[in-house]
Amino acid sequence: MTRLFNDPAAFADEALEGFAAAHRRWVRPVTGGVVRAAATPAGQVAVVIGGGSGHYPAFSGLVGRGLAHGAAVGNVFASPSARQIHSVARAAHGGAGVLLMYGNYAGDVLHFGQAAERLAADGIDTRTFAVADDISSAGADESAKRRGIAGDLPVFKAAAVAAEQGLPLDEVLRVAERAGARTRSFGIAFSGCTLPGADHPLFTVPEARMAVGLGIHGEPGIGEEALPTADEAARLLVGTLLKELPEDVAAPAGQRAAAILNGLGSVKYEELFVVYREVAALLGEAGVEIVDPEVGELVTSFDMAGVSLTLTWLDDRLEELWQAPADTPAYRKGALDAPDPADDRAPGTVPAPHSADVQEAAPPPASDASREAAATVLAALDAVARVVGTHADELGRIDAVAGDGDHGIGMRRGSTAARRAATEAHGLGAGAGTVLARAADAWADKAGGTSGALWGTILRSLGTALGDRDAPDARRVADGVTEASAAVRRLGGAEVGDKTMVDVLVPFADALAAATAEGLPLTAAWDRAAATATAAAAATADLLPRRGRARPHAEKSLGTPDAGAHSLALITRAVHGALLEHH
Amino acid sequence: MTRLFNDPAAFADEALEGFAAAHRRWVRPVTGGVVRAAATPAGQVAVVIGGGSGHYPAFSGLVGRGLAHGAAVGNVFASPSARQIHSVARAAHGGAGVLLMYGNYAGDVLHFGQAAERLAADGIDTRTFAVADDISSAGADESAKRRGIAGDLPVFKAAAVAAEQGLPLDEVLRVAERAGARTRSFGIAFSGCTLPGADHPLFTVPEARMAVGLGIHGEPGIGEEALPTADEAARLLVGTLLKELPEDVAAPAGQRAAAILNGLGSVKYEELFVVYREVAALLGEAGVEIVDPEVGELVTSFDMAGVSLTLTWLDDRLEELWQAPADTPAYRKGALDAPDPADDRAPGTVPAPHSADVQEAAPPPASDASREAAATVLAALDAVARVVGTHADELGRIDAVAGDGDHGIGMRRGSTAARRAATEAHGLGAGAGTVLARAADAWADKAGGTSGALWGTILRSLGTALGDRDAPDARRVADGVTEASAAVRRLGGAEVGDKTMVDVLVPFADALAAATAEGLPLTAAWDRAAATATAAAAATADLLPRRGRARPHAEKSLGTPDAGAHSLALITRAVHGALLEHH
Repeated sequence: MTRLFNDPAAFADEALEGFAAAHRRWVRPVTGGVVRAAATPAGQVAVVIGGGSGHYPAFSGLVGRGLAHGAAVGNVFASPSARQIHSVARAAHGGAGVLLMYGNYAGDVLHFGQAAERLAADGIDTRTFAVADDISSAGADESAKRRGIAGDLPVFKAAAVAAEQGLPLDEVLRVAERAGARTRSFGIAFSGCTLPGADHPLFTVPEARMAVGLGIHGEPGIGEEALPTADEAARLLVGTLLKELPEDVAAPAGQRAAAILNGLGSVKYEELFVVYREVAALLGEAGVEIVDPEVGELVTSFDMAGVSLTLTWLDDRLEELWQAPADTPAYRKGALDAPDPADDRAPGTVPAPHSADVQEAAPPPASDASREAAATVLAALDAVARVVGTHADELGRIDAVAGDGDHGIGMRRGSTAARRAATEAHGLGAGAGTVLARAADAWADKAGGTSGALWGTILRSLGTALGDRDAPDARRVADGVTEASAAVRRLGGAEVGDKTMVDVLVPFADALAAATAEGLPLTAAWDRAAATATAAAAATADLLPRRGRARPHAEKSLGTPDAGAHSLALITRAVHGALLEHH
Repeated sequence: MTRLFNDPAAFADEALEGFAAAHRRWVRPVTGGVVRAAATPAGQVAVVIGGGSGHYPAFSGLVGRGLAHGAAVGNVFASPSARQIHSVARAAHGGAGVLLMYGNYAGDVLHFGQAAERLAADGIDTRTFAVADDISSAGADESAKRRGIAGDLPVFKAAAVAAEQGLPLDEVLRVAERAGARTRSFGIAFSGCTLPGADHPLFTVPEARMAVGLGIHGEPGIGEEALPTADEAARLLVGTLLKELPEDVAAPAGQRAAAILNGLGSVKYEELFVVYREVAALLGEAGVEIVDPEVGELVTSFDMAGVSLTLTWLDDRLEELWQAPADTPAYRKGALDAPDPADDRAPGTVPAPHSADVQEAAPPPASDASREAAATVLAALDAVARVVGTHADELGRIDAVAGDGDHGIGMRRGSTAARRAATEAHGLGAGAGTVLARAADAWADKAGGTSGALWGTILRSLGTALGDRDAPDARRVADGVTEASAAVRRLGGAEVGDKTMVDVLVPFADALAAATAEGLPLTAAWDRAAATATAAAAATADLLPRRGRARPHAEKSLGTPDAGAHSLALITRAVHGALLEHH
């Protein structure tokens, strides 16, 4: 379990601070993460990686020469927000565009995608690439749905070295695609991890059993077996990977491969070496030449007990990229000459802000009516934070049936941050629109994950609809909710019937629009729509998820409502309570 | 716990094989451990480190340019044997002498000391240095008794860089002494580890508690407190280390120090960073400038949960040595040019044998009488292995009262290996003396630890007394036991009354000598002496250990017999049974 922390809510930020303090030679902190201590040379594509905290050395430990130019660092097991990614990418940008790279998780795909749009709006040429190496997480025919695990390293590295060689952005992307297509991982796990401040493990594996294919956040595996010997574990890992070769590799014999035997946290070095002994023997028997193997902890999940094997099937070009030197806090290889001095700013690069959050500007002017309405918004956000806090454990349990169980944690972080930001903005005299917009940014920033991005979008849509000038009437609120419903579908790619929050948001928005069209005042209209939402959330228990979350065995959730749908229904009910009190 | 292994008895050997296979760029295996892939340059002092397995990257992971020239690798948590160390040192020797370096544990002190004698006998100039940085393990007035923990790294490194700079052996030793005198560590622990194949932890810490000063093998700490926050942990570690400055450092302000925040195995990177954040702040407040901090896993104990802080107070020379580049499997720093090719043997170095054990030569000729006696020796060794196997758990429990609890494990490994070696030698027609000599080497090799060295000595003394020519009579056996008793006292430095096996061995030897002097036949004489041994072992429960084992709170063992004394008494009784059956 995780034992050493202060305020659990501050864990990821404090870890990043300590990390940066210990590694000044390599990195400097910027808002949202770290970039190399030396600026990206002008004209070099910047490779910016990122993901949740709790996986060190992924992601901050992989920033430095021969590897990433920057890393956006999210909360524990949660994607960084689009704002964080945008900030890190701007700081890392060397004038030749940015390649954003991350593991293939819904939250990361969302936030990195949003960040790419913002960077493009800034005039920075941007591409994205999601590593999807975990062959246990989806079949070969659905490889785009696979999760990214320890295969991150060779794919990040290939692209980064190509960038340092001066290749233009689209060619760097092609290198990433080539490395990604030839990288496969497979893992087993023996125990879960307990997150900072939690009083029970995020997930568990039965005593003396092994979960085959379990994900690094506890995403369900594809089977369970008796604890193997080290040699049996090696046979399972190698045997499974040799069964799925890249399309252009006919047989293992005569191939060359990079091999990474990765410990998840508490399977320790000597155990890894015992397993590697047999991995090397089996690959040798299959005629595979191992190039520069790595045996150690490259992607962890706190003290989770587990191990994964990654193979990157090399061609001459990929071998050159894999063997190139690297010098980062956690990954050093070969010989590089003396590091560039940290203060050697290349011309034309964007100066990076310090790690402290950028101070919010004073809010734009607002009418008295809108400032009054902001008090109601604040009361509603307070009610949201309270109802989420009360139900956080329940939400986590529901989410854990087929997902990674972090919905409660993420919603609590997001709603609390939103309330704080709203309170501050309200204190500065902001109108309802700005209060919601700042709450939206805070929610997305602090919650991370898919739900963080979607709730940020919901609040932002509402804020835009309300604005800072007019007193918001029922119709305007209903329009905002309708826009939020459309934006969430656009962003998340889910439709009604996919067993997501969309199954609640759409009927809620429709019911609210209908009730306000009938002329009902906001509180009464909201009440009716909230009843629709509650019924719709309960009905998700009868649904099978159809797509989009890359969770194997999500069908296990039949009989359980969707966590995101359930939390949305709870929130609509709580907001109704706040409206009643405030009118 | 440790989950991935094959035969637990083969764990350390298989881990070393896998380690060497994964790191051919840096190391090559030799009997007893590893040496650098490239030979030690002629005329350069070789720094050879070593210790038990289970502490990776200590010790094999620290072999390479800028650090050790070789590492002798013992069994799990057990010192390498003198034979292993001797073998590794010969392979690493570059013609300018050898500095043997290790943590200050009784078993290591013994075996490295024996190895130094053998190297000297080979004409290789040899010095030894034991790192003793753990300030919780003995008071400042008894600093020579302190254990070595993560302070190993900066002290090894200082000496190794001095050796690479071409300093002669005695000056390299002086650098080690200077670095050792200025290096202090202090640690806390939250849970123990379960060794490969064991079904319960080697030691435990109560839930939500912290053991202050607990050793890396579970040696008792100096107190127990509630689980701290990360900041509280940092304050305890920094505060304690600032209270004991080196003699020539008047105050922390204005000093420069190397800092190592070391995780023991399952306190993971992000937790370490959160703690380091406050460590850096506190040292900054005290006016200490941290130079090249290391935050990670440098000395582990499988998946033990714990953390230690090491400070090396730097002068200009030590700072130069600390900042020098290094390139080893687990520790890389700065820039070194391309590595020497692995096959570039410097002239005059000793070619190293492959990792497989050197084949035993055919035994020297023996008389029929001695070969017949060898069958009795074999029966006795079989009885020893059986009685140790039956009582191994009990011996571990007794040893755990004030020690590291590995006495049962070590005795089982040693006695089993001795039986195997004796069986093989007997099968080849060896006489009683050679059978005992080979059993002695096998016991010391495989058991490791203090008891391994002492039991090796006992069997070797007996073998020398019996020889391969004459039929051993009672008097000759008694002479051998008397010589064994003297040798054990000489080697271990303990006397009667110190609560060690000497409390049994001396009266046993005396009683056997007296009984044979009276003319009793061997079996009867042995029976009487064994009764004396049993009584003497029980009486050790009334003794307080007086010295020599560097175990804090060894006084806790009052009321419990000494584990080594108890096992010796059990063995004398078992051997009597074998003599009865065989005569």
